[in-house]
Amino acid sequence: MEILQIVKIGGNVLDDQASLSLFLHDFANLDTRSILIHGGGKIATLMAARLGVEDRLVEGRRITSASTLEVVTMVYAGLINKNIIATLQAMGCNAIGLTGADAGVLAASKRPKGSVDFGFVGDISAESLDATRFSVFLDAGLSLVIAPLTHNNRGQLLNTNADTIASAIARCTSERYDVRLIYCFEKHGVTDQSGNVFKELRWEQYQILKEQGVISGGMIPKLDSAFDTLASSVKSVQIIHASDLIAVAGGELKGTLILK
Amino acid sequence: MEILQIVKIGGNVLDDQASLSLFLHDFANLDTRSILIHGGGKIATLMAARLGVEDRLVEGRRITSASTLEVVTMVYAGLINKNIIATLQAMGCNAIGLTGADAGVLAASKRPKGSVDFGFVGDISAESLDATRFSVFLDAGLSLVIAPLTHNNRGQLLNTNADTIASAIARCTSERYDVRLIYCFEKHGVTDQSGNVFKELRWEQYQILKEQGVISGGMIPKLDSAFDTLASSVKSVQIIHASDLIAVAGGELKGTLILK
Repeated sequence: MEILQIVKIGGNVLDDQASLSLFLHDFANLDTRSILIHGGGKIATLMAARLGVEDRLVEGRRITSASTLEVVTMVYAGLINKNIIATLQAMGCNAIGLTGADAGVLAASKRPKGSVDFGFVGDISAESLDATRFSVFLDAGLSLVIAPLTHNNRGQLLNTNADTIASAIARCTSERYDVRLIYCFEKHGVTDQSGNVFKELRWEQYQILKEQGVISGGMIPKLDSAFDTLASSVKSVQIIHASDLIAVAGGELKGTLILK
Repeated sequence: MEILQIVKIGGNVLDDQASLSLFLHDFANLDTRSILIHGGGKIATLMAARLGVEDRLVEGRRITSASTLEVVTMVYAGLINKNIIATLQAMGCNAIGLTGADAGVLAASKRPKGSVDFGFVGDISAESLDATRFSVFLDAGLSLVIAPLTHNNRGQLLNTNADTIASAIARCTSERYDVRLIYCFEKHGVTDQSGNVFKELRWEQYQILKEQGVISGGMIPKLDSAFDTLASSVKSVQIIHASDLIAVAGGELKGTLILK
């Protein structure tokens, strides 16, 4: 099976033009089929403020009102995605930007109201995805750049966590490709309180570290997505510093390897 | 050769949700390969105002500063394009939204500074386009929805007139498909001062009507693009009311037929 590298790039790298250019240069030079999934939270927060749209987070997750959905659609699918595409094209990488609505690649369900109403937020089940919707582009030699928006097949766009999208695409495409999932961000991996990187992290150890409060906050949804991926034929799941992408793609062990 | 219908939808239809839904319903029901090109001027003007970005028009054409480019990238490629895609998907049309940067479909050159500096505006030459960049999607059964942005192959997005894009794509794809180009807008065709529709319009007649001031303003760049198209193997070029799309696709003569 052909190798497919699925790379998630986190918000802090997107916020810094110099880091982003270096990262995109590395992504453009991957010599395998590849998919990039990006977030864009801080740029959306700034744009919401400029537009006077209330930006409310509950437990670190954004409440997506109709106005917030407009903002994230403009920022994720427009501003961020299309500037990444133009940059990758200039670097010789034949990239195409998609939301989950485009070519119907990512259908989702609006999250039911629980104790919190998250608004226009979509949850995807990897089982509902169709690998051929991705392979038609990949096999034509295109690199996909996915903005974190899905749709409900009834005309509604939905805001969806980029870490979760990366995991869902990895699981779905692992039927057809030798998939390596790489979460890139501004840290050197999953760390303890002293900043030491765990070279490997297993599910049971993760549960203990969560209980001890060693792992907390935004790392929890990221790691939950990472561990979810292991229920498929995905070959490896790694959490690394954005600057280590080429090394890791070349087989070096950097950052944290996620294991069952 | 297979039929390819290339449809341009104008700004006024986009501004009215009810007209837009009816139009997209008709587009979704075309039974040929199809490409939709949309503008979005008024929505961009409103968004620029909300963001305090100066929106300056010279001779009816927008001056695109770096801030304006941000706004149109968000509005055209994000807000308008992705809502159209989600709507078409819900109508059973497997649509995918692209700017000219995506998959490198539309490269352009930044317009040189003349008496007016239009800023980040791109001019495309139909001769530089590659029909296979479109056919890879069309032959996979996808309908393309194009936002009026191009790129310069060096990382810069450029604002580009949607009428011109429609004409350039029609010319380029006419090598491979039996192309019909249809400009849809809120009028019943090209009209004289009394509102009578010209059923046909030939180049020489157009020159006379321009001199007489019968045809003026925004119709001139649209008609210039329409006539440019005739220098290729495009089968027909029509300017029609948006509500006549299905009738015209079915072979009825409505609106204005553009002839050499």
